[in-house]
Amino acid sequence: MIEVPPAEEPFSLDELQKAVRNHGMPLEALRYDITPAGLHYLLIHYDIPATDGAAWRLDIAGNAERHLTLSLDEIRARPSRTLAVTMECAGNGRARMANRVRSQPWLVEAVGTAEWTGTPLAGVLAEAGVRPDSVEIVFTGVDHGIQGEVEQDYQRSLTLDEAMGADVLLAWAMNGQPLLPQHGAPLRLVVPGWYGMTSVKWLNRIEAVTSPFQGYQQATAYRIQMSEDDPGEPLTRMKVRALMAPPGIAEFPSTNRLVDAGAIALFGRAWSGFAPIVRVDIGVDGDWHQADLGAAPGPHAWRPWTWTWQAEPGERVLSCRATDAAGNSQPLEPFWNLQGMGNNYVQTVPVRVR
Amino acid sequence: MIEVPPAEEPFSLDELQKAVRNHGMPLEALRYDITPAGLHYLLIHYDIPATDGAAWRLDIAGNAERHLTLSLDEIRARPSRTLAVTMECAGNGRARMANRVRSQPWLVEAVGTAEWTGTPLAGVLAEAGVRPDSVEIVFTGVDHGIQGEVEQDYQRSLTLDEAMGADVLLAWAMNGQPLLPQHGAPLRLVVPGWYGMTSVKWLNRIEAVTSPFQGYQQATAYRIQMSEDDPGEPLTRMKVRALMAPPGIAEFPSTNRLVDAGAIALFGRAWSGFAPIVRVDIGVDGDWHQADLGAAPGPHAWRPWTWTWQAEPGERVLSCRATDAAGNSQPLEPFWNLQGMGNNYVQTVPVRVR
Repeated sequence: MIEVPPAEEPFSLDELQKAVRNHGMPLEALRYDITPAGLHYLLIHYDIPATDGAAWRLDIAGNAERHLTLSLDEIRARPSRTLAVTMECAGNGRARMANRVRSQPWLVEAVGTAEWTGTPLAGVLAEAGVRPDSVEIVFTGVDHGIQGEVEQDYQRSLTLDEAMGADVLLAWAMNGQPLLPQHGAPLRLVVPGWYGMTSVKWLNRIEAVTSPFQGYQQATAYRIQMSEDDPGEPLTRMKVRALMAPPGIAEFPSTNRLVDAGAIALFGRAWSGFAPIVRVDIGVDGDWHQADLGAAPGPHAWRPWTWTWQAEPGERVLSCRATDAAGNSQPLEPFWNLQGMGNNYVQTVPVRVR
Repeated sequence: MIEVPPAEEPFSLDELQKAVRNHGMPLEALRYDITPAGLHYLLIHYDIPATDGAAWRLDIAGNAERHLTLSLDEIRARPSRTLAVTMECAGNGRARMANRVRSQPWLVEAVGTAEWTGTPLAGVLAEAGVRPDSVEIVFTGVDHGIQGEVEQDYQRSLTLDEAMGADVLLAWAMNGQPLLPQHGAPLRLVVPGWYGMTSVKWLNRIEAVTSPFQGYQQATAYRIQMSEDDPGEPLTRMKVRALMAPPGIAEFPSTNRLVDAGAIALFGRAWSGFAPIVRVDIGVDGDWHQADLGAAPGPHAWRPWTWTWQAEPGERVLSCRATDAAGNSQPLEPFWNLQGMGNNYVQTVPVRVR
């Protein structure tokens, strides 16, 4: 039997102030292969910067033969690809963790899938002549603020091998439109399969370095840490997860759900940054049933699942649990870690059947 | 001296679940005359319905000469107008109210301005031959759920006079694009000057009636009520309000702001559903200074304001207060009412100047 995890403690004003700025994806939007504009999740550390596409330039520098400075038009003139990519916040699932850190209080809705259009990063790195003894590529965004008492531009790195991956894009469009301000206009990095912190928004500098990057967002934040003294393990790819669109009708302002007895077409999506989804199981009061899987809109995008539930009157708890081809499956309960990261425990959906 | 209102009590799980679905406008987006897609506020009572523009029809019925059934193409073929309209949720400001109702916990960010394109409602009502003894027009959306133990489609009404206003639109586009699902696709009502509950989304039925509409969202919800027994006063037009984009740089995950001493260009917007904005005053630790006003992007849209602050080191509290041509000004403190509606008290922005 699966229990609905409690929210151990009420939420603070700071947490609420994050929640009203950082948008979640309403779960009924799981019906869309590609998440419409404005429904994709957002996690923005500082302010959305004011950028001007005409004045903006991307610098590629550091341990390379050439220092490149590219305009948006020059980048858009390069070979382009469009990829459907599911992106999730590494902090998704934090809000139901016992003794949670006071950060963005995501329940389960920090996800979305967009069609990103851009040019492969590898080509730009090759043109700059990044030297093979470079160990990492550092990406810097225009967004600027303070975290952990460190004033900083938002910065993340990838190893040279990861950065040269064919599907890592410098993206200027989302769902066929120029990037919206909140998604990193005019240009962002998109790293398929990884948690969203890697896909640096408002990108304006790329630097090849010869020793591992020790910036705040790499060496301090975004780690599975068990204590302040624990250096922890970095978050990288998205752990396996399935979500369900809550069935029936909603009550406002509670989030109770009311379902009519009979055949109910449950649906949702599942994804993993490690391997394709091969199985989704649907729980009804703790009894598990294998769902039917549909086709993902692309190799880096979530896979739809459906299952028909014969709903009988009473209070029920539904859940869903995904498994990927690498054998990863979801834990049944939230697990504690200092930063509240990587919490891919199974979603639970309490409903009343009438 | 203005105090920053406390959040009297921490926030519940139900309130958080509303906050992650119902998006606020990040306040730095006050820089835009027209709010970009995805940054406009959202308040959705039940689920975003799945609508299909090709199958969808609008019925115009009731106390009229003719029952009309119109397709989206037929509506789009009618004369069209595009209007910049500032829209705000009637519950904006609820979260800092003492002993607040447990509903959507808005702080101050439930606002946005969009360019809506549609056809005047008046023309459609005239074509249907709505009879002059009709007292109200009732608007029904596809969205369906339970509120106050009443299962319902979302419904609101306007008096016939209000509905015949030249600027009331049946809108199919927002910022030059087809309506997004969360904004009412394929068609919504847009009633300039009124709180957002009036602008019924996912509109599929319009009915002329000969007695005042007593539906839940009209007769029970959206009222300034002082007790359960008080029938209360209905919310109608947006009360006067100014907002400020918090200056300086943000701290994450707190919402502290750090400002460099010296000249700081403060900016924001102000609006009122009753009359044009004629004055905005900026408070610095309770001393008031008159801001410069710019041109609104249209008669139904917010007016920009700017003021240069000579910031001196220390802890400061900034605020802004708008006055409209009808003499309405904002209260300095939140005021209690049962539903937490119409709370247009002045925004306060604590900052540290270094």
